[in-house]
Amino acid sequence: MASKKPDYNKLALALHKKMKGKISIESKGKLKTKTDWSTMYTPGVGAVSSHLAKHPKQAREYTMKRNTVAVISDGSAVLGLGNIGAVASLPVMEGKCAIFKEMAGVDAFPIVLDTQEPEEIIKTIKHLAPGLGGINLEDISAPKCFEIEERLKTELSIPVMHDDQHGTAIVVLAGLINAAKVVKKKPEGMKVVIVGAGAAGRAIALLLNKIGVREIIVVDSRGAIYKGRPGLEGYKRKLAEITNPNKLSGDVMQVCEMADVLVGVSGPGTIAKAHIENMGQDPIVFALANPIPEIMPADAKRAGAAVIATGRSDFPNQVNNALAFPGIFRGALDKGVNKITDEMKLAAAKKIASLVKKPTADCIIPPVMEAGLVKAVASAIKPVKK
Amino acid sequence: MASKKPDYNKLALALHKKMKGKISIESKGKLKTKTDWSTMYTPGVGAVSSHLAKHPKQAREYTMKRNTVAVISDGSAVLGLGNIGAVASLPVMEGKCAIFKEMAGVDAFPIVLDTQEPEEIIKTIKHLAPGLGGINLEDISAPKCFEIEERLKTELSIPVMHDDQHGTAIVVLAGLINAAKVVKKKPEGMKVVIVGAGAAGRAIALLLNKIGVREIIVVDSRGAIYKGRPGLEGYKRKLAEITNPNKLSGDVMQVCEMADVLVGVSGPGTIAKAHIENMGQDPIVFALANPIPEIMPADAKRAGAAVIATGRSDFPNQVNNALAFPGIFRGALDKGVNKITDEMKLAAAKKIASLVKKPTADCIIPPVMEAGLVKAVASAIKPVKK
Repeated sequence: MASKKPDYNKLALALHKKMKGKISIESKGKLKTKTDWSTMYTPGVGAVSSHLAKHPKQAREYTMKRNTVAVISDGSAVLGLGNIGAVASLPVMEGKCAIFKEMAGVDAFPIVLDTQEPEEIIKTIKHLAPGLGGINLEDISAPKCFEIEERLKTELSIPVMHDDQHGTAIVVLAGLINAAKVVKKKPEGMKVVIVGAGAAGRAIALLLNKIGVREIIVVDSRGAIYKGRPGLEGYKRKLAEITNPNKLSGDVMQVCEMADVLVGVSGPGTIAKAHIENMGQDPIVFALANPIPEIMPADAKRAGAAVIATGRSDFPNQVNNALAFPGIFRGALDKGVNKITDEMKLAAAKKIASLVKKPTADCIIPPVMEAGLVKAVASAIKPVKK
Repeated sequence: MASKKPDYNKLALALHKKMKGKISIESKGKLKTKTDWSTMYTPGVGAVSSHLAKHPKQAREYTMKRNTVAVISDGSAVLGLGNIGAVASLPVMEGKCAIFKEMAGVDAFPIVLDTQEPEEIIKTIKHLAPGLGGINLEDISAPKCFEIEERLKTELSIPVMHDDQHGTAIVVLAGLINAAKVVKKKPEGMKVVIVGAGAAGRAIALLLNKIGVREIIVVDSRGAIYKGRPGLEGYKRKLAEITNPNKLSGDVMQVCEMADVLVGVSGPGTIAKAHIENMGQDPIVFALANPIPEIMPADAKRAGAAVIATGRSDFPNQVNNALAFPGIFRGALDKGVNKITDEMKLAAAKKIASLVKKPTADCIIPPVMEAGLVKAVASAIKPVKK
């Protein structure tokens, strides 16, 4: 297949080989004079340590803690590549850290773990936390990612967010808010079918449920998830409690009848033209598998889709987590927020949506370089009022 | 006591409050164009991850691993402040990371742990190791620091060094090599008394033993350590095997008779003028407690010391670990050396000593800003020939 597109794989390999690491760690101060040495380090630094021993909360004032996030992965679910392990996931985590700094001024350090055991991951991250201002979990497989995040949120006093879940859900919601405007529907009244019940699928369902979307059907490899489905366990069982009120069963074809929205967070080929043709008026289709979407935009359009989004930058309406996570952590760090709540996620989604002044079929999601993006998202993160 | 010296404590507190963290994490590449995004991050980064999944050893070529060291502490033995915990130790670790970058171009990240259990520390560090090129252990109390370092050296394939032990020992040896020249003695033939049997005292004894110093006596709070001393356990028992061949017993006063060298790695007041007066000809006195030495240089001189070193930058001959650790890790990272051996430590000490062309009583140790220092030390670190 001939293509005039740049070969990003080849370019990326060359770039990485040249850079030998995408982030660097710099000293903010010089070490030239005796005073530099005596204040940046001993003996003067001892006074700072003594002070913090008495007033540990002032670490925000005197150390890097206030602006530092660790991007942590066990390499168990990296991009669309699966369980490729710690070292192979490092370039992705470095990239995320580069985005953190370039977009939001956050000092982010990548940590890739040689364990994939949930308890070990939780313990390790808790042990690392004292010097950190926040934790961005990344590319950890479902279902363990749910427990790891929940436990860390409960047991740590700094913000913890698994971006594959919530970053994705926030940007999907932002896109749906604007897509609904384009097709002149109310989000709450829409029937939404989510193909894929992994980390992203679950998070999208939970967030849409939170804004009051009444009919959400999540489909896994065995068909629609409904209360009472034989063999349903764990998080899917909980998902069935709050989704699919009509207990629809069957495959995507069966449950997407008259649906308003079809969200693919699965893999290539899981959405067909026939599915879209089976939907209601003005179908909204988010085909987010990367790099190959569940259905290509041209095919979705031919099947009648009114609004189409993908995870790719070379089609309109890219669902890109980088729209959300830098601003979310920027806001949390600046305001000393120690938990990212559902309310903050909803507010962030609305902020992102609001940056598109006049949504059209080809523009429901702002570009990642949109001026004011990080500031707008950060403003959605506010300390919870008691 | 009036003093015209700058108040480094006050200056350091002000500096830290202004900087809010002494290190920053920067992206080496910009994220402006679509090509930037598609090569620094997805989709291109996927090709790099796929490549590393097949060829994990090439992480050296494609990631930050090759130039990255973690400076890790549990806050259990910070400077002379004792067990002040993780958060309070962070400014020291940040300072060390600043030194790593400014002196040797090493990307160093501080990690302070919320556990002080040796097994937890070992497990945590092992879990973090895949993305790291080396580990600098710092300010971890004795005796657990010995086991932690030994285990990590054995179980990891990247260099691990507890700087409080080996950095100190290397610089002490460098100083002693030159001090011996000043007093025209051979290091091997000198009688060395070490006051303090903690992390630094043990490491100095081991390294001096390695170069062939025959008479080394280590003194702890109960007196000289000798083979068969009642109640002797653990690492001190092992130390007794290789030191104090004449099984001298008693306090510092008793064992320093006719000694050539007295090294204090203890605390203020543990070395008295009378001790020095009891030593042999041209006594060499290293009083390394910080910020207050075991004996002040003026007092040591009055008691007859021929060469005096301290840990402070405001007296001649500062034993400063920053003379050693940046170059040692620089060399290890550049040459892919995965263990810092005793031979390398000896070679590094000799390199540091050699930078002082004509040693005098007031100049046995080069200043930390000495041109060519890091390069010279790095050149001592060479892959072990098989």
